[in-house]
Formats: sequence, C-alpha cells, structure tokens
Amino acid sequence: MIKVVILGGGNVAFHLTNQLLKNTSVNLVQVYNRTIKNIKYLEKQISITNKLKELKDVDIYIISVSDNAIAPLSKKLDFKNKLVVHTSGSVNITEIKSISNKGVFYPLQTFSTAKNIHFSEIPICIEASTKKDLELLETLAKSISKKVYHINSNQRKSLHVAAVFVNNFVNHLYHIGNDICDKNNIPFEILQPLIKETSEKIKTLKPSVAQTGPAKRNDTTTIKDHLDILTKNQQEIYTLLTQSIIQTYGKKL
Amino acid sequence: MIKVVILGGGNVAFHLTNQLLKNTSVNLVQVYNRTIKNIKYLEKQISITNKLKELKDVDIYIISVSDNAIAPLSKKLDFKNKLVVHTSGSVNITEIKSISNKGVFYPLQTFSTAKNIHFSEIPICIEASTKKDLELLETLAKSISKKVYHINSNQRKSLHVAAVFVNNFVNHLYHIGNDICDKNNIPFEILQPLIKETSEKIKTLKPSVAQTGPAKRNDTTTIKDHLDILTKNQQEIYTLLTQSIIQTYGKKL
Repeated sequence: MIKVVILGGGNVAFHLTNQLLKNTSVNLVQVYNRTIKNIKYLEKQISITNKLKELKDVDIYIISVSDNAIAPLSKKLDFKNKLVVHTSGSVNITEIKSISNKGVFYPLQTFSTAKNIHFSEIPICIEASTKKDLELLETLAKSISKKVYHINSNQRKSLHVAAVFVNNFVNHLYHIGNDICDKNNIPFEILQPLIKETSEKIKTLKPSVAQTGPAKRNDTTTIKDHLDILTKNQQEIYTLLTQSIIQTYGKKL
Repeated sequence: MIKVVILGGGNVAFHLTNQLLKNTSVNLVQVYNRTIKNIKYLEKQISITNKLKELKDVDIYIISVSDNAIAPLSKKLDFKNKLVVHTSGSVNITEIKSISNKGVFYPLQTFSTAKNIHFSEIPICIEASTKKDLELLETLAKSISKKVYHINSNQRKSLHVAAVFVNNFVNHLYHIGNDICDKNNIPFEILQPLIKETSEKIKTLKPSVAQTGPAKRNDTTTIKDHLDILTKNQQEIYTLLTQSIIQTYGKKL
C-alpha cells in the first residue's frame, strides 16, 4: 500500500487529507504543518507534526502549501529515493528543490473549506521525472479520481491560465450580475437557471457554437442601451468583452 | 382555457410553440411567421399563416421576433381588447404599438434550436399595463413554469444586462479557455468539472464570497507569469478583469 505524508494545512491540503483518510487503498501516515493548530483537529486520527525532522518514512511526500513556499520547504527535505510532489497549478516541477525524485499532483478544482468536494470527479494532473514515479503517482491518483491526466509543466501553466478564465473571471462576472440585480431590486436567483444552462451547454456544444447575445449579433442598438445603464468599471468590461466577441465571430463594429 | 397565437419563427418562438403544443391547459390556436417555410413543420398539428389578416381571434398574441421588428409588427395588429405581448428582455413595453392592451412575457433563458429546454425551470418575467392582464399572463406563465416574476420594463433592462454578463460574456470566457487548451494540446474536458463547480457554488455562496484566484490574492508573480503566455487580446481581458477583482476586494496593485 502506498504510504503518504501531506505537508500543509490550507484548502487543498484539507480536502486531500480528508479524502486520503477515508481511502482504504492508500495509507496516509502523517500530516505536517508549520502551525500545528491548523491541523490539531486531526490528532486523534493520525500523526501530526510541525517539525520536519519528525517526518515519517513514506513513499510520497505531498507538499500542498502556497506557491512561493514550495521551493523553500522542499529544499529542507533531504530524503533520497523518495518522491516529493507539489499540488500547484502554476509552479514548475523544477521548483521542487529537494534531492529526492520530483513530481506534480495537481487536482484541478476550486477548493473552499466551506464546501464539500467529490474528489472522484476532480481531474488530477500528474507529472514526474521518471517513468516509475509517474506510475506510482498514477496509482495514487486513480485511487482518488476517475479522471487522471498526464500534463507537463508547460501545459499545466497554460491549463492554470485557462482555469483562471473559466473559474475566477467567470465568478467575477457572476458577481457583476449579482451587483446589477441588487441595485435594481431583482432577486439574483432569477439568473440561476441561465447560469446553469450556460455551463451545461458546453458539455455538448463547443463554446464558440454556443455563443449568443447582442455582441454575437452585432446588435449595436442593444449594446448602446446596455452601456447607458452601467457603471464606469462595468462599461469597460462590457466594451472589451463585446469587442472581443465581435472580433472572434468576424464582424467589425 | 386561454387561447394563444404565437407570431415568430426564431429560437424563442420555436421552443415556446413546442411547449404550448403539449400544454393541456393552454390552447395554442395558430402560429404566424412572415416566412412560411420556417413554420411549415407545424402544419399537420396546428393552423399556420404568413398573412396578418388571417390571424385568429384569441386572448393573447405573443410576438416573438427580433427586437427591432416588435414595433413595426405590433403596429399592424389592430385588435381592441386583446392582449399583445412580446418576449424580449431588452425592449420596453411601450414599444408595442398596437391599439390593444400591452404586456411582456420574457422567458429568461438562452435558447438554441439545437438543444432541448425544460421550460418548467425557466424563470418567466411578466409585465402588463392592467391588473387583469397581469393576472391573465400569470396564469399563462404558471402553466409553463414554476418560476414567475413580476418585473417592470426598467428592471427587465437591467436584468437583461446582468444576463449578458453571466451568460454571453461567461460563454466567451469559456471560449478563451477552450482556445488556450487547444493551442497546448490539452483536452478542454479537463476544465468541465471546474466549470460545473464554479456555477454551482453560487447557489449557496454569494459570488463575492466564492471568489478565489491570483487576482483575489493579489498574487502579482502568478499574474505576471500568466500574462507572459497570453495573446494580446487575452492579455487585455486578463488585465481588466484582474484589476476589477483587485478593486472589488480592496487591494491595490
């Protein structure tokens, strides 16, 4: 059985820890965090520590900390013949500075501690410097998720940018929609079915085929009407995205 | 039983016609379209026409045509004591130029002919100039959907703009994500669970609470790394949305 230590106490580490604790085909041996109180809740179930020299001997060390802490933390891990991986979407495999073997174990999802996650549906993107380690990571990943992809560091960087567009930026557009509703005494829930349909449509249609709206139709009257009732910041976003849609579908303003 | 005529042959008219044909509490009497061939498929089930003078005598005439055709078409309808409504999100009730009573029957959803729609989940926003007509429209709306809202023309205009943000613009961000994946040989399906989670999260969390990502954290290193691998158009959108998120959450670049 693969033995694992998780290093970190943030959102990803939290969900991964809970997942591995109930996973019968992986042995989560220990959780490390610099601040012990964040992982104190685990002490009745598993070994916890805030001292690197107390780390147990396992197969895979999963570093799940903030991006800029990956290099300094991994540098302090002086095991040989062990696999050390990070879980970040935007950090190159070469940023792991330990003398051990290196890899990446990146679950592509948005994690809030507040919300439960079904790990089996989360794509896990893996990368390793040797074939043997890639197989080991694949075994670990497949014990957690049905969706495992081999993604190298360059691809992962692009994937992470794409994720910012379809998650962080999309959520910000939801926020703007919510704001417009609030200011006009419209319940935001009216937009929920539209949001759901928009996100589901692209399972069967390419986004470019699913595109609709005034910008796609180059409907300048409606576009002008809309701009009239927006704040300056909203106008800037509306204008830029409208221009981008018009450019994409080949009609000039 | 409420008797209805639909005028139009576009996406909304198509789905509304199909819905009313199977609705046992509403009598869809006739469908009109300027070009008869678009509605020819209906001729075995229902009366169809391309001549306004052949319009049957019913309670509600639903004009479901392009926005700028609503005024000229409604002007040609010379019934008294009938209710004439349009289905547009962005056109004022006053644009109905018939001498009849006026109303709006706006189903808030994105319609593609290619994709089936479950009407019972679609919010229908209604407006009318008299209380009696509002009740009539409410009866019609409730026979189709569980979600019926009274929304006046000003609110509807704002709602329509909000819908452009959470639907048309969101879909364009999906398209950009898809584009980045294609250019890096990454299957776009990897992003599907993230897209789903992002859209579902806001059922229980306000979008402002659900916001994550480099812009929210003001993570300038990642932001710079991302900009480096984007096209000029993608950079512009990335920069503007990042600035807007930073402004929203109170951190300055």
